[in-house]
Amino acid sequence: MRGVVMHAPGDVRVENREDPRIEAPTDAILRLSATCVCGSDLWPYRGVDKVEGPSPMGHEYVGVVEAVGSEVTTVKPGQFVVGSFWASDNTCEVCRAGYQSACVHRQPMGQFGSQAEYLRVPLADGTLVGTPEVPSDDLIPSYLAASDVLGTGWFAATAAEVGPGKTVAVVGDGAVGLLGVLAARQLGAERIIAMSRHESRQQLARQFGATDIVTERGDEGIARIKELTNGLGAHSVIEAVGTQESMMQALHSTRPGGNVGFVGVTHDVSLPGMDMFWSLVKVQGGPASVRRFLPHLMELIGNRTINPGLVFDLDLPLDQAAEGYRAMDERRAIKTLLRP
Amino acid sequence: MRGVVMHAPGDVRVENREDPRIEAPTDAILRLSATCVCGSDLWPYRGVDKVEGPSPMGHEYVGVVEAVGSEVTTVKPGQFVVGSFWASDNTCEVCRAGYQSACVHRQPMGQFGSQAEYLRVPLADGTLVGTPEVPSDDLIPSYLAASDVLGTGWFAATAAEVGPGKTVAVVGDGAVGLLGVLAARQLGAERIIAMSRHESRQQLARQFGATDIVTERGDEGIARIKELTNGLGAHSVIEAVGTQESMMQALHSTRPGGNVGFVGVTHDVSLPGMDMFWSLVKVQGGPASVRRFLPHLMELIGNRTINPGLVFDLDLPLDQAAEGYRAMDERRAIKTLLRP
Repeated sequence: MRGVVMHAPGDVRVENREDPRIEAPTDAILRLSATCVCGSDLWPYRGVDKVEGPSPMGHEYVGVVEAVGSEVTTVKPGQFVVGSFWASDNTCEVCRAGYQSACVHRQPMGQFGSQAEYLRVPLADGTLVGTPEVPSDDLIPSYLAASDVLGTGWFAATAAEVGPGKTVAVVGDGAVGLLGVLAARQLGAERIIAMSRHESRQQLARQFGATDIVTERGDEGIARIKELTNGLGAHSVIEAVGTQESMMQALHSTRPGGNVGFVGVTHDVSLPGMDMFWSLVKVQGGPASVRRFLPHLMELIGNRTINPGLVFDLDLPLDQAAEGYRAMDERRAIKTLLRP
Repeated sequence: MRGVVMHAPGDVRVENREDPRIEAPTDAILRLSATCVCGSDLWPYRGVDKVEGPSPMGHEYVGVVEAVGSEVTTVKPGQFVVGSFWASDNTCEVCRAGYQSACVHRQPMGQFGSQAEYLRVPLADGTLVGTPEVPSDDLIPSYLAASDVLGTGWFAATAAEVGPGKTVAVVGDGAVGLLGVLAARQLGAERIIAMSRHESRQQLARQFGATDIVTERGDEGIARIKELTNGLGAHSVIEAVGTQESMMQALHSTRPGGNVGFVGVTHDVSLPGMDMFWSLVKVQGGPASVRRFLPHLMELIGNRTINPGLVFDLDLPLDQAAEGYRAMDERRAIKTLLRP
């Protein structure tokens, strides 16, 4: 099959890779309908994370079940499915508490490389959620978004305890931040402040439900959020970048007793104890437990309540993956969808 | 009046200080029934925090109202009252959300020095909670504990989202940690693991409701907590020390999706972003909003449901404050009560 392989920073190629096959009785093989490039794929692409030899890429996926192992009971060949970027058994104590991304048997899907024609999914019963019918083509991007960026934005909003009557600020205007805006809207936030200085992203933020845009960053951004919130800060702040500046911006934009939900993969970040202490802010983040939210999100997509697929502003054949990476790296595209 | 003044690390004296008087119409003056030495008073005593010239000491207090300003309506002369170590208006948006320690008009009570015969309390209506009658002498230590250590342990347990069915671990066997155990018990925890290597403190922990004692610290302590919790970690961890080691011990003793409530005043602590990210633990701490809990705690004390005053294992006249500090510094005493 064809699949994306990263050889070195900036060097992404579409090559022949071995077809995946059932290895365990709990596996499923998917023929992928669509896959995409993640903001986190840019860390190795930019050389911030090390590239250890040629690596298959991608961890977001939707597709049709091609084959299942003998123990798989909840999905069957021909069915359209969405899965999270962590495979999980969905039965252990941690899964049952809603933290499938920390399942005691979790496996990162990135190791299998979903930017490809086919994908092996372990723990298929716990990981995959099917739709009643194969959805129409125009819904594919939204289902694909559910696999990571929508689920991650939703997790961040939940970690930030977004709810009715609250003011929410969103740090980061990538796909996850923008879908954090959408999640905040769905979860009933009264006011949603998107922090962005890019006009096209501001526009999408408004479309997803942002009521205010703040273009300032760092201390100026914090001051602006306070101005908009009686000097107190937002109740809930979603952090979707992962740098020291963005984390401090999130922490100090939150009122005492408020919440930060952070999902940017933290790079060289450290939270000063004194800032945490005096802020009185509740902070939770990490790899999103997308699986917790998948059934609900897929319902909202299926009945066209939400349209998270709008974050894909570049749609390319898989073979043009290199251009898809480049466009995101240069911020010409918010998110690239790849069609195998 | 007589009052404690710290001149330098290790140098605590009881001296004549000026009698406090009503300065604002919202003030009250208390004749103190009891006061005490806090673990946080040991930071300057040990020279970790700087001592800027002679400083009146103390921020915990119970007493009888001596006089009130013209605008005070909720407490009156002759009434026995307890207050938090932060004065707060209890009416602003932050107070109403339960974070009186971050009240927009807050004043730290430490600046007035409660280790004395009399004390001025600003924002008396918002800060003080009275009892229906002057309580019997044997209840005084417990009411005094409510002023800080009990309220702080309770805040930590609440921040750690302690509740029925949960396993709680407590890092720190000082008065706050021990009363965190008591709080966890009252809040319905199923299992409470106290981390302590001091026999007398272990005994008090058990008396307050600890079901297990772990004597190991650091990585060994974390491993022991995991052993006791199916390899997952506790649902809720109370951190009541404030060092890097204790914070990391708390974070890594908590299961994914669990909670850390930290109330040790953080000294040179920084939380690595990657540890926070991969832990998926929700962390909240800071100066406890004791005022939120005071009415409930005072009720539990008044009807003798709880006996937090047991943490005072040294009871001295105010004039012997220096010995009170020494005993705590040398860990001969858990907490020293001082009688003016």
